[in-house]
Amino acid sequence: MTISAGTTLRELRERKPLVHQITNYVVMNETANATLALGALPVMAHAREEVEEMTRLAGALVINIGTLSPHWVDAMLAAGKAANEAGVPVVLDPVGAGATTYRTRTAERILAEVDVTVLRGNAGEVATLVGVEAEVRGVESMDVGGDAGELARSAARNLDLVASVTGAVDHVSDGSRMLRVANGHELLGAVTGTGCMSSAITGCFLAGKSAAPVEAAAEALAAFGVAGEDAARDANGPGSFHVNLYDALAGLDPSTLDERANIAEG
Amino acid sequence: MTISAGTTLRELRERKPLVHQITNYVVMNETANATLALGALPVMAHAREEVEEMTRLAGALVINIGTLSPHWVDAMLAAGKAANEAGVPVVLDPVGAGATTYRTRTAERILAEVDVTVLRGNAGEVATLVGVEAEVRGVESMDVGGDAGELARSAARNLDLVASVTGAVDHVSDGSRMLRVANGHELLGAVTGTGCMSSAITGCFLAGKSAAPVEAAAEALAAFGVAGEDAARDANGPGSFHVNLYDALAGLDPSTLDERANIAEG
Amino acid sequence: MTISAGTTLRELRERKPLVHQITNYVVMNETANATLALGALPVMAHAREEVEEMTRLAGALVINIGTLSPHWVDAMLAAGKAANEAGVPVVLDPVGAGATTYRTRTAERILAEVDVTVLRGNAGEVATLVGVEAEVRGVESMDVGGDAGELARSAARNLDLVASVTGAVDHVSDGSRMLRVANGHELLGAVTGTGCMSSAITGCFLAGKSAAPVEAAAEALAAFGVAGEDAARDANGPGSFHVNLYDALAGLDPSTLDERANIAEG
Repeated sequence: MTISAGTTLRELRERKPLVHQITNYVVMNETANATLALGALPVMAHAREEVEEMTRLAGALVINIGTLSPHWVDAMLAAGKAANEAGVPVVLDPVGAGATTYRTRTAERILAEVDVTVLRGNAGEVATLVGVEAEVRGVESMDVGGDAGELARSAARNLDLVASVTGAVDHVSDGSRMLRVANGHELLGAVTGTGCMSSAITGCFLAGKSAAPVEAAAEALAAFGVAGEDAARDANGPGSFHVNLYDALAGLDPSTLDERANIAEG
Repeated sequence: MTISAGTTLRELRERKPLVHQITNYVVMNETANATLALGALPVMAHAREEVEEMTRLAGALVINIGTLSPHWVDAMLAAGKAANEAGVPVVLDPVGAGATTYRTRTAERILAEVDVTVLRGNAGEVATLVGVEAEVRGVESMDVGGDAGELARSAARNLDLVASVTGAVDHVSDGSRMLRVANGHELLGAVTGTGCMSSAITGCFLAGKSAAPVEAAAEALAAFGVAGEDAARDANGPGSFHVNLYDALAGLDPSTLDERANIAEG
Repeated sequence: MTISAGTTLRELRERKPLVHQITNYVVMNETANATLALGALPVMAHAREEVEEMTRLAGALVINIGTLSPHWVDAMLAAGKAANEAGVPVVLDPVGAGATTYRTRTAERILAEVDVTVLRGNAGEVATLVGVEAEVRGVESMDVGGDAGELARSAARNLDLVASVTGAVDHVSDGSRMLRVANGHELLGAVTGTGCMSSAITGCFLAGKSAAPVEAAAEALAAFGVAGEDAARDANGPGSFHVNLYDALAGLDPSTLDERANIAEG
């Protein structure tokens, strides 16, 4: 068993990888601060004129379709292709796939044209992208019928990537292995952008651990979930929880993280 | 008297309506989090390619012109028209109308082409839109000469909508009825985007109460004001007040809200 | 010695100047709230259709290239020229100059076409703009070899402006005078956008003090640094520090600021 969120966290804090994020307007500050609090270096850049150059400098690229427009889609595709050429891992967060045709089509197009390393979404979004009918209301996570583990496995196989399906329990699969992560806190659902943060942190862990993206993706969710557990202590609601979350990410202790990480294989 | 902020809050928390917001870059995270903390589901989408589809899924559409550009104006008009066709109520926040010609003309154009349910602005902005000379400096609220109640009533009549003019005391009128809301706290003026939040929350209340938008608009301001009062307790300044505000919105108790809401008719 | 951060702060709080900011998506809310907490009025506007009109209303213009695209560059140039014509001081924050060609070229173009009053950047960014090879990784500050004071002086002379190079100790020079500011706290480096905030506050101080921009720029950094020192007390990490920072900016006391400001000349 080579899964060790603590080891990867320690390494990424030493390397301080640049994590290039082309993300939505709503959460840019939040994912940048989460990345920085964890110990990596965020950079936001979306211009067609610079995304390829920026991506080649990065340890990971995170593409998030939360607030789309055509120029941004062009930049996401260009950055994704540049990342592929340079061997930079790519995370795709298909925010709101299933809610509108434009979002679904854009996510599908990125999956078709870019070699995505990890697809990190909620069950409704991932179900949409493997052709399963799902209830999606806007961009918030909804329960889907069926087994989230099965969904992750079939998404991984159909799309040839690591599928990271987050929910009360997260399911991460590369098509053969299945990792279940049972960390986190319900207050994560009360703050906008925590899903986007988990995608950003997935990018950080991919940049910190070169082998086995299925493990890095699960470790990232465990680390983020543990931070959520810490943040919930002394929180009076979503506002104070949100603030505590950055403190908790910065305070994550690599030496105790593996004991606290609740990752089960199989 | 059918005014009951507590009843509407309880209903909107049960329905969890989607509130589609085409708003400015400065406050997107803040209005999304305020919406979520209150108990509704925010969604931000501004692409011409998807706004109509998204709006038709929503319980309310909130248009906020705080950071404009031509593509966004096109999307606002398209979304507004789609909302009108689908019977979705529309809130317009004319941020900075009066400060620049572009903002004034854009607000006027939206009012001309879209059937706006509630116009929520400060006195300077609303005065500009009914042709009264007003001092507007940037996007912050300034006092206008004259009676804010009279301004709300004449805006409602001239523009055929509910005018919701916020200030130390808020004035909400549909042209015949006049509701005065005396909740809130001065620290609300020390945080950017609280006006935009009040517009978002107006959208939530419109989505939660189908009848009498003049009442829903006043209830929204009372609820937001009560949350502001709660947030001010233990605040050390605008930063901690801002954090407390989300906790307070999430903590609003429908069973005590009507006692605390200071809404006077007439 | 006419340097007095307390006097300038007192004056700007009385005048409440409008500070027009064309800045990046990541920090818009943060710089707006920092401006408001300090006591000035922020306004964000980026449309080509309105930037000139808005700038002419302002006490200072802050241009920040943190998230670029061609339309925004056009607006930055137009606003900068309008500011020059109207005698409005201009701050340029060349975020990420050196990281990509597009950022470097854009910063150079603004410097060539606009009369910039204060260039506020980290050592790597400023070094790039005076043609010194520097390690720049994304948008975070890195150490550069050599003397930051010498860098500030040569940037001021070569570019004919006030160079404000921030770091553990800040160096502000107009080419002849050199002011060293030794306030601040290391947690400022743990929150995204604190560099951008220091540029916004530089704009506030320029708007509050008409003479000697080299002094206003140093006073701004001292005031921001003192607020950082206050914010670090009772902070549990970057999240709570960030919140405290707004409280501290609002709580800055003009009557004790000069004692606490650590500004050395020469």
